[in-house]
Amino acid sequence: MLNFQYYMPTRIIFGPGTLDQLGDTPYLPRGGKAMIVIGESGVMVRQGYLSRVQSLLSKQDVQTIVFDKIKPNPESDAVDEAAAICRDKGVDFVVGLGGGSTIDSAKAIATMAANKGKYWDYMQSGSGGGQEPENDALPIVAIPTTAGTGTEADPWTVITKSGTDSFEKIGWGNDATFPALSIVDPELMRSVPPKQTAYTGMDAFFHATEAYLATCRQPASDMLALEAVHLIAHTLPQAVAEGDNLEARTIMAWACTAAGLCESYSSCISQHSMEHALSAFHPDLPHGAGLVLLSKAYFGFLAANGEERLGDLALAMGDTLEESLDEEVSGVAFLDALDKLITDIGLADEKLSDYGVTREEIPMLAENALTTMGALFDITPVSMSMEDVIAIFEAAYE
Amino acid sequence: MLNFQYYMPTRIIFGPGTLDQLGDTPYLPRGGKAMIVIGESGVMVRQGYLSRVQSLLSKQDVQTIVFDKIKPNPESDAVDEAAAICRDKGVDFVVGLGGGSTIDSAKAIATMAANKGKYWDYMQSGSGGGQEPENDALPIVAIPTTAGTGTEADPWTVITKSGTDSFEKIGWGNDATFPALSIVDPELMRSVPPKQTAYTGMDAFFHATEAYLATCRQPASDMLALEAVHLIAHTLPQAVAEGDNLEARTIMAWACTAAGLCESYSSCISQHSMEHALSAFHPDLPHGAGLVLLSKAYFGFLAANGEERLGDLALAMGDTLEESLDEEVSGVAFLDALDKLITDIGLADEKLSDYGVTREEIPMLAENALTTMGALFDITPVSMSMEDVIAIFEAAYE
Repeated sequence: MLNFQYYMPTRIIFGPGTLDQLGDTPYLPRGGKAMIVIGESGVMVRQGYLSRVQSLLSKQDVQTIVFDKIKPNPESDAVDEAAAICRDKGVDFVVGLGGGSTIDSAKAIATMAANKGKYWDYMQSGSGGGQEPENDALPIVAIPTTAGTGTEADPWTVITKSGTDSFEKIGWGNDATFPALSIVDPELMRSVPPKQTAYTGMDAFFHATEAYLATCRQPASDMLALEAVHLIAHTLPQAVAEGDNLEARTIMAWACTAAGLCESYSSCISQHSMEHALSAFHPDLPHGAGLVLLSKAYFGFLAANGEERLGDLALAMGDTLEESLDEEVSGVAFLDALDKLITDIGLADEKLSDYGVTREEIPMLAENALTTMGALFDITPVSMSMEDVIAIFEAAYE
Repeated sequence: MLNFQYYMPTRIIFGPGTLDQLGDTPYLPRGGKAMIVIGESGVMVRQGYLSRVQSLLSKQDVQTIVFDKIKPNPESDAVDEAAAICRDKGVDFVVGLGGGSTIDSAKAIATMAANKGKYWDYMQSGSGGGQEPENDALPIVAIPTTAGTGTEADPWTVITKSGTDSFEKIGWGNDATFPALSIVDPELMRSVPPKQTAYTGMDAFFHATEAYLATCRQPASDMLALEAVHLIAHTLPQAVAEGDNLEARTIMAWACTAAGLCESYSSCISQHSMEHALSAFHPDLPHGAGLVLLSKAYFGFLAANGEERLGDLALAMGDTLEESLDEEVSGVAFLDALDKLITDIGLADEKLSDYGVTREEIPMLAENALTTMGALFDITPVSMSMEDVIAIFEAAYE
C-alpha cells in the first residue's frame, strides 16, 4: 500500500529572465553579507553572470564575498577553506552560482560555516567521521547555469575527499541543505557548450530514470520522472545542436529541475554509486559522461534481470501511445532508445579508456562503489553482488 | 515561455497506519503545549481519533487543549475565541484533526494566536480589514480524516464571517499557514459515510480540474491534476460504495492530497467563488455538494466558450489512450464524463432548491461571488461578466 514522505521546501522561481528577481524578491534569506561560490574556470566572470548577481544583491543591500576555487569535481579542502572565510567574515547566507559543483559546494560550505571541524567529519560512509552537524547550515541560494544536477531542487551535495591517499566521492545532505531559494533562469544556460550540454542533460536524464526505478519511489516522483525522461529524450539533441535556442533550453531547464525534484521525492540508485567511484579516481571525467559510459551495461543488467518498469521509460522516450510494452521487450526497447539518444547527442564514440580508466582498476572501483555509496544499492530494484558490479564495469569497459 | 514559482514546504507523511508516527516523528513542531481543533459533531471523539492523537502527542511530552466548536462551514468568531485561548494558555502549535473545516480553522487560529485583533481584520476582500499579519502563524499540524479539501497540502483556509448581517465566505492564507507537518492516514477515512465521501471526493475533483484550467498553472500542477482527475473518476464510486475498502480510500487520499498540491502550485478558478457565495448564504450546503450542483452549468459555459483543455480532463477520466480529442467534442466529452461520475456516486438527483437556494437570490449570489472572491475570475481561462455569472447560476438552478 502507498506509503511515502513528500517534502521539498525550496522555493523555486523558474523562467527566462527570472534572475532579475534576485534584485527585489522578498524571499532572499535575511542578512547583509553573502558569499558567492563560483567555479575556478572563470566562466561566471567572463559571461558577466557574477557581476550581475553581485549587482542584483547590492540592490537588496547585500555585500558579497566571492569564493572562486571550486573544481568540476569539488573537493573537501575547498569547502573547509570557504567555510572558514564565512565564519571569519560573518557571512549570513551562501549563493551557489554555476553548475552542480558550485551549488553543491555552496551547500557544504553553508553547513561548515555553522559547524565545527572539517567537512569530512560529517560524512557517513567511507573514511567519513560519521558525525551529525550540531547546527543548521546557513541559508542557501542556488542559481544554476547548467541543466544537469537538479541540485536546485534537492538537499544533496556531492564532494570528493581532498588528498592523494584516498578516493572518495560521497553524497550528503540534510533538511538544512535544501536551498531556501533557487532561481532557474534558462537564459543563463544558452552559453553552455554542446558537449557540456550533452553531459549535464544526461545527468538529469539518469536522475529521472533512476528515481523512477528506485524502490523508494512515490507517485509524484513517478510523474516528474516520466515527464523529465520524455522531455529530455525529445529536446536534448536540439539543445546540444542549437545552444542558443531558448525554448529548448527552457524545456531542458524544467526537465532538469523536475529530475532534481525526483532526487528529493525518490532517489538515485546504484548507477550513481558506480559513477562516483569512477570520477573519484578520475576527476577529469565529467559526471554525466561517466553515467553515459556506464549506462548501457548498467541498464542492460537491470533488463536482463527482468526490470519491467524500463518499458514505461521506453514509452516516455518514444512517440507512441501504447499503454505498456510486452514484458520481454520492454528492457530492449529502453536500451534501444537510450542508444539512439546517446548517438543523437554525439556521445556514441566515447570510451572509459579515453578518461584514463583501466581494466585493472575495476575490482577497486566496484569495492569503492559499494563502500562509499552502498546505501543506493539497497533501493536498487535488482540486487547486485560484488561480482555483478564488477561484471557491469567490465561490460561498460568493452 | 514557461514561468512559474514552485513552493510547497509542508512535510507530508502519507500512508495507512502513519498516524502512529505522530508519537515519535522528529518533525513535530517544537513546544510542550498544543491545541487540537476538532468539529462540533463529536465524530472525532466517538471514533476514538481524538484520544489517539492526545495519547500520541503525550508520548512526545506534549500537553493538549481541545477546541471542539468548529462548524462544517467554520466561522470567524470560533477562530477568534480559540486564538484567545491559545494566547492565554501559551500554546506552541495547533493541530487540526478532521475534515477541511477543522484544519482550515486550525490555520486561522494559529494565525490569530500570534497576532492582534480579529481574524476578519486580515481578510483582503468583502468587509475584511485588509491588514497584513505582523507575525507568522504558530506551526500547524494537519491530520485529515476525509479525502476532500487537500488543505493538508496548501496554505489556504476558508472561513465564513460570523453574524447574521453579512454573508462572506473567504479564502485566505500566507506562507506561514502551510502546515509544518501533515499526516495523511487513509485508515482514518474508512469511517466517512457514503454521502460525505462523495461530496468531499468531488471537492478534490474540482480542485484538480480547476487547477488544470487556471491560467496560473504550471507543469507540476498539470501532472498532479490529471493524476487526481484520473484516480477520482476511476475510484470515487468504489470508495462511496465500499467505505471500508482501504485500497480505494488510499487512492482517494492520495488523489485528494495531489489536488491539494495543485492548490499550492496552481489555483482554483471562479467556480469556487460561486460556490462560496452559495454556502455563505446556506451554511448547511456542503461545499462539495455546492460544487457538484454548479458544475454542469459552469463547465458547460467554459465548453461553450471553447476551452480546449477540457478534452485533456475528459481523456483522464476515460479509459482510452487517444492523444487528444477533437476541439469540437472535447467540452462535450468532459461534460458527459462529469455527468456519469455524478450519477455513479449517487448525486444525480440533488437540486440547489433542496438546500433552500431560491431563484430570487441569484443576482445577490453573483454579486457576492465577484466581490468576495473576485480574484479567482482573473485566472479563469474564459472571462465572465456579471451577466455570465448570473446565467451560470440560472442554468445550475434549472
